[in-house]
Amino acid sequence: LSSAKRSKSAERAIGVFDSGVGGLTVVRALRKLLPQEEIVYLGDLARLPYGDKSAETVRRYALDCFHFLERQDVKMVVIACNTATAWAIDLLQAHSELPIVGVVQPAVDATLKAAPSKVGVIATRGTINSGVFQQKLHPLPLQAIPCPLFVSLIEEGLTDHQATELMIRHYLGSLDQVDTLLLGCTHYPLLAPTISRLMGPSIRLIDPATSCAETVAAELQKTDLLANGTGQVDLHFTDRPPHLERLVEAFLGEQVSFKLATL
Amino acid sequence: LSSAKRSKSAERAIGVFDSGVGGLTVVRALRKLLPQEEIVYLGDLARLPYGDKSAETVRRYALDCFHFLERQDVKMVVIACNTATAWAIDLLQAHSELPIVGVVQPAVDATLKAAPSKVGVIATRGTINSGVFQQKLHPLPLQAIPCPLFVSLIEEGLTDHQATELMIRHYLGSLDQVDTLLLGCTHYPLLAPTISRLMGPSIRLIDPATSCAETVAAELQKTDLLANGTGQVDLHFTDRPPHLERLVEAFLGEQVSFKLATL
Repeated sequence: LSSAKRSKSAERAIGVFDSGVGGLTVVRALRKLLPQEEIVYLGDLARLPYGDKSAETVRRYALDCFHFLERQDVKMVVIACNTATAWAIDLLQAHSELPIVGVVQPAVDATLKAAPSKVGVIATRGTINSGVFQQKLHPLPLQAIPCPLFVSLIEEGLTDHQATELMIRHYLGSLDQVDTLLLGCTHYPLLAPTISRLMGPSIRLIDPATSCAETVAAELQKTDLLANGTGQVDLHFTDRPPHLERLVEAFLGEQVSFKLATL
Repeated sequence: LSSAKRSKSAERAIGVFDSGVGGLTVVRALRKLLPQEEIVYLGDLARLPYGDKSAETVRRYALDCFHFLERQDVKMVVIACNTATAWAIDLLQAHSELPIVGVVQPAVDATLKAAPSKVGVIATRGTINSGVFQQKLHPLPLQAIPCPLFVSLIEEGLTDHQATELMIRHYLGSLDQVDTLLLGCTHYPLLAPTISRLMGPSIRLIDPATSCAETVAAELQKTDLLANGTGQVDLHFTDRPPHLERLVEAFLGEQVSFKLATL
């Protein structure tokens, strides 16, 4: 590529998709680390959640989301959903030459770097059932626990509620001698303070959003695709429920307007 | 219609649809009341839940479900989902000459029959936002409370869990001088025993499943469409998550095999 073409190519947006608003924690981490990058985000609210649906259905939905981002002429696609990454990243990579970063591998790398003696992994039922973390962290001693209620509790803004504390104890009470806990769902960073408080300071939490943003930054640097722009964020959702403004603000940390997308 | 034709017509199945498994509480009530009726059920698991999605999206999904049941040549369609009834029953009725029964009106009628002094209505956010119960129960004194966590807690089998008790107190703690509580979601019958225990015996619960089944029976009787069959149940779902067998058994009260449906 000539320098002019490379530069034009680098100025394209990073595409990010998720089943809903959870992936906005990744966007938030990206904005902090790469404030000059333009981001196009798609949240598939019309068909969320992905975490309890079958592999076939999640693959079909992920492909739809990917096609939407391809049409926006993005320079890279970030799968900001662990369930979609677990079931569909191979399919998407086989399907396109665009660079694709999923949230699973960066969290795995960050976990391995921490050299834990035993790892706990919490995620949706779909992600745990996929076995992706068990496989990638093998042969580390590991406890994998599906926590299907967490997403709803977080979306309801109940992160500090007593019922949420009870559910944390319910799901994580069986963790035994774990020193590192991988948060295997992009919703969970909002629950990290409560989990830390209940589990104590001796457990290190691996945040899927920051580890993913770091990988994206490294990839863009390596391929000379870092942008030098104004950091615009375009949010697209496949549905517009009445409480969406509140959710966007909770997950992104700021209020940004959004458009309705048709897949 | 000749007697032969009428009889043939009456032997067609009752079509029932819902966003997922909640509507199976209606199927269960129908089977108890009308054991000779054949039932075709569609649960739109690939796109559930409907309770937090926009009116436009729920209408589009409800129409897809309705078309599926039309293709099964059913004699009546039961909308076994309060959110879909709230947003889409008018659209479906304008769209077709098939008799259509939604879950909302039967529960309203049962509530009015109980002559309450003040009514509480609990439902999904979508159903409460639609205002359908507030409108139909007007001018009865009424408190309407969205309970978005209940569906997840019930589907996780946590109906007796302490976290569920906390959420019941969280949502229903503000009920004031209510003597009748309308369960405005077909998931909620599974939570009725816990709600009764916590709220005390002075509150009468209106069950959407039994009231709907009674209306269906009355309608079929009135239009001479009661069947005299073996009571076969055909379950169709638009997705097949791994925990579906458990959910079917919990909501239907028996294990029945199912097929994958494409809408």
